Amino acid sequence: MAQYVFFFGDGRADGGAEGKNLLGGKGAGLAEMVRLTIPVPPGFTLSTEVCRYHYANGRRYPEGLEAEVRASLAEVERLVGAKFGDPTNPLLVSVRSGARVSMPGMMDTVLNLGLNDATVKGLAARSGDKRFAYDSYRRFIQMYGDVVMGLKPENAQERDPFELLLERKKEQRGVELDTDLAADDLAELAVEFKAEIAQRLGQTFPEDPWQQLWGAIRAVFGSWENPRAVTYRRLYNIPSEWGTAVTVQSMVFGNLGDDCATGVAFTRDPSTGERRFFGEFLPNAQGEDVVAGIRTPHPISRAARMPTDPLSLEEVMPRAYGELCEVYQRLEHHFRDMQDIEFTIQRGKLWLLQTRNGKRTARAMVRIAVEMVREGLLTKEQAILRMEAQKLDELLNPMLDPTADKRVVARGLPASPGAAVGKVVFSADEAEALAAKEERVILVRMETSPEDIHGMKAAQGILTARGGMTSHAAVVARGMGKCCVAGCSVLQIDYAAQQLTVATPEGRLVIKRGDVVTLDGGRGEVILGAVPMTAAALDDNYHELMRWVDEARKLRVRTNADTPADAQTARAFGAEGIGLCRTEHMFFEPERILAVREMILADDTAARRRALEKILPMQRGDFLEILRAMEGLPVTIRLLDPPLHEFLPHTETEIRAVSDALQIDFQTVQRKNESLHEFNPMLGHRGCRLAITFPEIYEIQVQAIVEAACELQAAGVHVLPEIMIPIVGHPKEFVAMRALVVRIADEIIRVRGVPLKYTVGTMIELPRACVAAGEIAEAADFFSFGTNDLTQTALGLSRDDSGSFLPAYIEQGIFREDPFVAIDREGVGALMQIAVGRGRARKPAIKLGICGEHGGEPSSVNFCHQLGLDYVSCSPFRVPIARLAAAQAALASD
Amino acid sequence: MAQYVFFFGDGRADGGAEGKNLLGGKGAGLAEMVRLTIPVPPGFTLSTEVCRYHYANGRRYPEGLEAEVRASLAEVERLVGAKFGDPTNPLLVSVRSGARVSMPGMMDTVLNLGLNDATVKGLAARSGDKRFAYDSYRRFIQMYGDVVMGLKPENAQERDPFELLLERKKEQRGVELDTDLAADDLAELAVEFKAEIAQRLGQTFPEDPWQQLWGAIRAVFGSWENPRAVTYRRLYNIPSEWGTAVTVQSMVFGNLGDDCATGVAFTRDPSTGERRFFGEFLPNAQGEDVVAGIRTPHPISRAARMPTDPLSLEEVMPRAYGELCEVYQRLEHHFRDMQDIEFTIQRGKLWLLQTRNGKRTARAMVRIAVEMVREGLLTKEQAILRMEAQKLDELLNPMLDPTADKRVVARGLPASPGAAVGKVVFSADEAEALAAKEERVILVRMETSPEDIHGMKAAQGILTARGGMTSHAAVVARGMGKCCVAGCSVLQIDYAAQQLTVATPEGRLVIKRGDVVTLDGGRGEVILGAVPMTAAALDDNYHELMRWVDEARKLRVRTNADTPADAQTARAFGAEGIGLCRTEHMFFEPERILAVREMILADDTAARRRALEKILPMQRGDFLEILRAMEGLPVTIRLLDPPLHEFLPHTETEIRAVSDALQIDFQTVQRKNESLHEFNPMLGHRGCRLAITFPEIYEIQVQAIVEAACELQAAGVHVLPEIMIPIVGHPKEFVAMRALVVRIADEIIRVRGVPLKYTVGTMIELPRACVAAGEIAEAADFFSFGTNDLTQTALGLSRDDSGSFLPAYIEQGIFREDPFVAIDREGVGALMQIAVGRGRARKPAIKLGICGEHGGEPSSVNFCHQLGLDYVSCSPFRVPIARLAAAQAALASD
Repeated sequence: MAQYVFFFGDGRADGGAEGKNLLGGKGAGLAEMVRLTIPVPPGFTLSTEVCRYHYANGRRYPEGLEAEVRASLAEVERLVGAKFGDPTNPLLVSVRSGARVSMPGMMDTVLNLGLNDATVKGLAARSGDKRFAYDSYRRFIQMYGDVVMGLKPENAQERDPFELLLERKKEQRGVELDTDLAADDLAELAVEFKAEIAQRLGQTFPEDPWQQLWGAIRAVFGSWENPRAVTYRRLYNIPSEWGTAVTVQSMVFGNLGDDCATGVAFTRDPSTGERRFFGEFLPNAQGEDVVAGIRTPHPISRAARMPTDPLSLEEVMPRAYGELCEVYQRLEHHFRDMQDIEFTIQRGKLWLLQTRNGKRTARAMVRIAVEMVREGLLTKEQAILRMEAQKLDELLNPMLDPTADKRVVARGLPASPGAAVGKVVFSADEAEALAAKEERVILVRMETSPEDIHGMKAAQGILTARGGMTSHAAVVARGMGKCCVAGCSVLQIDYAAQQLTVATPEGRLVIKRGDVVTLDGGRGEVILGAVPMTAAALDDNYHELMRWVDEARKLRVRTNADTPADAQTARAFGAEGIGLCRTEHMFFEPERILAVREMILADDTAARRRALEKILPMQRGDFLEILRAMEGLPVTIRLLDPPLHEFLPHTETEIRAVSDALQIDFQTVQRKNESLHEFNPMLGHRGCRLAITFPEIYEIQVQAIVEAACELQAAGVHVLPEIMIPIVGHPKEFVAMRALVVRIADEIIRVRGVPLKYTVGTMIELPRACVAAGEIAEAADFFSFGTNDLTQTALGLSRDDSGSFLPAYIEQGIFREDPFVAIDREGVGALMQIAVGRGRARKPAIKLGICGEHGGEPSSVNFCHQLGLDYVSCSPFRVPIARLAAAQAALASD
Repeated sequence: MAQYVFFFGDGRADGGAEGKNLLGGKGAGLAEMVRLTIPVPPGFTLSTEVCRYHYANGRRYPEGLEAEVRASLAEVERLVGAKFGDPTNPLLVSVRSGARVSMPGMMDTVLNLGLNDATVKGLAARSGDKRFAYDSYRRFIQMYGDVVMGLKPENAQERDPFELLLERKKEQRGVELDTDLAADDLAELAVEFKAEIAQRLGQTFPEDPWQQLWGAIRAVFGSWENPRAVTYRRLYNIPSEWGTAVTVQSMVFGNLGDDCATGVAFTRDPSTGERRFFGEFLPNAQGEDVVAGIRTPHPISRAARMPTDPLSLEEVMPRAYGELCEVYQRLEHHFRDMQDIEFTIQRGKLWLLQTRNGKRTARAMVRIAVEMVREGLLTKEQAILRMEAQKLDELLNPMLDPTADKRVVARGLPASPGAAVGKVVFSADEAEALAAKEERVILVRMETSPEDIHGMKAAQGILTARGGMTSHAAVVARGMGKCCVAGCSVLQIDYAAQQLTVATPEGRLVIKRGDVVTLDGGRGEVILGAVPMTAAALDDNYHELMRWVDEARKLRVRTNADTPADAQTARAFGAEGIGLCRTEHMFFEPERILAVREMILADDTAARRRALEKILPMQRGDFLEILRAMEGLPVTIRLLDPPLHEFLPHTETEIRAVSDALQIDFQTVQRKNESLHEFNPMLGHRGCRLAITFPEIYEIQVQAIVEAACELQAAGVHVLPEIMIPIVGHPKEFVAMRALVVRIADEIIRVRGVPLKYTVGTMIELPRACVAAGEIAEAADFFSFGTNDLTQTALGLSRDDSGSFLPAYIEQGIFREDPFVAIDREGVGALMQIAVGRGRARKPAIKLGICGEHGGEPSSVNFCHQLGLDYVSCSPFRVPIARLAAAQAALASD
């Protein structure tokens, strides 16, 4: 029979830190401390398996659970020396949730459980503090009435009924503070609270502690599926099947007098990583009081105390403080990581209530790890593996103050990193107008188009409801180095009303034009109000860590960069080449778009060629600068990829400009424009298909690349251009494209007499290319996996349209993660595996890389390492993350 | 060194029938006849390899070619006993094209080559017929001037310059017919023709026979790429890399007197298949005269002669006729197939100029094969393998008279079989109005939408410029049993001008409103004018053949049918079940579409369910009828698949109807309608994704299926429903859907107490499903390959958008065939292979089938046999084709 209940106490625990999935973070930490003989109030944990059973079986419990609970509670009673429900010496317990990962405040807690009209008297007698006992009692009824019985205000206008009774009582007594109420007042309140429950709910408050306990357990399990928790899980990609554990623990009290206290502490500074004991406490208080911030807490150590601060714990309770120091050092040494602990001192005795690896800033993460290596606590390898790669983001971009409170109200795609604060506006024109008045604005659009460029330039950041990581908004924002959250499909934008609506854990929220929001482009978060910012800073610890990382990794790391500025940034971040330089983005600039439109709308090859001749010198200039910036390193340049109609004119003025330039009448241009409409542009006339029908497009691009490369090479700048063909499905397609490239390139090289080497390879971004990879490899110098498009085609899933159903897929656990964020290993990954196998079988030396957005996502980098790719390529600010992830992958597979 | 020139003559030939790819059809047939010692004028063939070399090398010839030609010509001179260019005894030759397959009239021919001012005198002397010699000479100059030197009218208004001179000569002489001109007149004309060439082209007509010969060879090779030939190849999917051979053959003359004749014959009747020698001849004439139809030819055999006919060949030249009969029997016996032969009798001697397998109607194809089995010429297996499976189409649908002349002006997709003749109209309203006046119309649209239904009903046939085999037009037309040619992207439709334009081999053609066209839905052909029709008829020979076919095949054949009528038709054609019953097509009917729109635009589950409740009884009725029609056979019903917005209202009136029905205001419905827009609907919210978000849609459908099945089963009608889930990519998706189906179905079965068996399977139509097939198979009872969508996703190619580039891919030989017509074996096929392998590895007994359009295409059926599928499924009228193709596959792989 499975074990459902896990006891801990008095140096004996069923399970420990390794059992986090089963016991939840809280339960596992408590059990582990007990094993270390650290003083922890005894208790027991109902495992997450009970939660899963509970939901899978019509909210019933597995057989035998009750007996296990009874047995464990008896053991607690024995250790505490008190009895559950005993009127003279009652045992009180807390009932708390505990998921694998912390979900602060999202689920329910019940404290002081076990109190009733009889036991409250026993508590008063045993504690010698009647006011304490009745205050605990009325708090328990209030909490139980709310959390378990469900007595809440019926609407947003109504006030909490318990609070109303409390207010009335204070009015009656003519006092202002809760603490001014006497023990008898509180006893009266307990009666009134129970009457209120009976009247409003038609059920009576249960006096039986066992009934109380099962009610609380059911409520805590139930809170796993409350709307707040569900929304939170969606925001943080936490699978609903994980479930929560429930920990029942005997109560200790930090509010029984001046020899009592409660506090929280970090074993090192979570903000800077400095090695110092760091925490706060309150004398004569309950744990909740520290967190709630009603009273200002005091520093724990004398060293941290400012002259105006009250006395530290070290000074007022030196013995307990000494014990605490001994405990924290043991915990840190045991977990080999910085710990976040909660403690209570009850009548001089120290009790630990929680320990977990502390949350920290990226800077602290790096410093702690590097210093722990120096201290001999960790090896370099352990330090690297300990890193949360994704978190380096914070170090690399100007960032939101990690210590600030943030109310995240929505999550979209982290389309362009960085952070931005500003007033919401819904049109590009208004963004420009307000920016002209030195206002900071966030431009919010359903999606952006080239017509919005001026507004995007003017805005601090861009937020769109539609579109993916390669949408117009995302691409342009990254090009501008502006923060962007894209495809935030939970936003309902109403242009007419100039507002947006979004469902949050706290209910529907309306954000109006002019309201201030903060965007976190690295996390894809939309945050209400202005969050303070801190500048990026790379310190010596970071550089030391990255040296270890580079020694450990096997994958090379390149960058996706379309501009010289991006290329330089990436190089500074350690990029070892460009893995993807997208030529089409160069075409979006206003002075070029007309020539591009001429090209697209030309009716014959001659007119198309004339337009292309205008583009040639501009493209050559682009390549000159990018190749120069990457001197000595390989640069993969992808020829034109997107559907031509992405560049089409939209407005009458734009169509007229093209018709003038081409000297073709307006109607003809308009008709042609319309005829280029496609039902499924993602699967349309794009990539090398453009060059199969209009070879001159690629011919001019190759000319621009090779002329630029020759010019640099002749001037002594060593360049390594790699020309990449997109949307190849059939080996013959690639062979034809390779022939085109070689014909143009070799002629230029011959005429100029410059010894230029170049290679020709292909994107692997269609399932057909994966299965035909063997034949393609025979003609190709390299493959670069375009996992964005490969995900779309393999899954038959348009990223831009997936907003209406992908969230349901993730919520229902069909996909563990958004497949556009982390590579879908069993699907897309399986196709990649086929491609790698077939490609290498025919050409063992073929160079293999990835240039989809996944190339900068740690778990995907790990997968690429396992596949045996040669390199990953990612956006400049993700290069260090990819380096770190590559090192972790190499170490993990050793 | 490769051999480029292949000699034939006097019982000796380099190569024969097996060398068709190298020698072309004409050259191979001549060589084979020579080997059989059948009298053939000697000559030689320049291979198709020369053609390929010629085009790949700037129109130069391979080294050694000239020497080979000289040697072969010398051999011809020796055999004929005449010399090329000899003024006293000149050898004359013809120069003709010859591709692998016949391309009648598309390429060039030069006759009588070798004549000049000197040799014409020799010809006159040797033939004893000066008029014949000069007529041959002026004809040669005319043909050479046109074909080789390029003297043609400069525009459509101008008349042919040679014809003008001929007319003038007749005026001068006061005669009416060419034949009334005397030898001297013709000699003068030869001089005038040469002067005209010199004046208009600035070059002189070459007197040197060698120069003439190389000029003619170059021109014939060149005609492979003339616009007519290119367009013809595009229309008939002939790869341009095949190239043409050139055959140079000594001339024989059927016009040297009354002991001369020329004719064509079939060894059996090509229209009915009857075993009788069947042909026509003209005494004292050249071959061209029979084909050109200037004089009415005479029957060959006495038996075929009508009382008013002139005498037969059998009667006027009994000896030559006897020889011809002996020859044709040898040829038919040798090739074991009906032959199409050309012959000339020169001064009593019979010469064969061509033999090839004769074109025939489908009925003749079946009869000839079945009778040849009875005659012992073929085994049953050979007879089956000899069939052109695709051609059965003609037998099954009312068809265009196969003997009628057809001017095919465009080809689209063969979207719905049958044929239709009518006046072109460009709007549904006009189609309806004209049909009301008993006019037959063809509705021509860019694409159709539900708003066009009334016009589609009124029209004889439907022609669209856009959209694929599953487009609205195609689906609705098949449902209505109407002929449809869809996605005919070469049409330029101008609604404003009420006309369409199309490029044809003969130039640009404008078809105006009211012009008559004929559609051949089985071939996807658009034909100018009215082609006469004949009714379908299945005779005993057909039934005999199909009995053999069913004995030979291993694959089962099912049908794709959405209506009871389709199901019955298919069953009559031998379908062994339904492989795909698409539930969505049932929703397009006018009385249902409103309920469907209500469902889509509903804002919550309750409103959606109300709308679905309206649909339930209709769907149940559909399933009752279809299951009844297929009593005892399996019926695979696919749950809703297409993107919901295919059903969305378009017009204000329609939106208002929905808003009234839902009692939601107009603007809200309109906004919701807009919000459902997708960028790439093919990759959007469709298939089981709909039921992951809105399970009630599938719940109602399952309810309708299972209630209908239970009702029939209870009434003693044995039914075998198979419920199929579309667009599955992830095993968990299928598991969730299966659970939904089982939950609803088992409850109904339990309540009704009917012993109903059903199975649950999935479409395999996404690459992800192919690689995850192992895990999916664990939960699925069957797989059905949806190769339409699988082709789109594997190739990243939207069928509806491929018109702008797929033709270039086929012309350039990247794809041999349209991958939406025949399975792309190396791409889509490779994915299918992975799916079959992984699926069967986990569940060896899983049932595997295909229900994409490919299921009725013979080469794809063959591939499915090779893959080891259990069945193919295709549209009703293709069932016999699939049965035949399945038998051919089984026999070919034995």
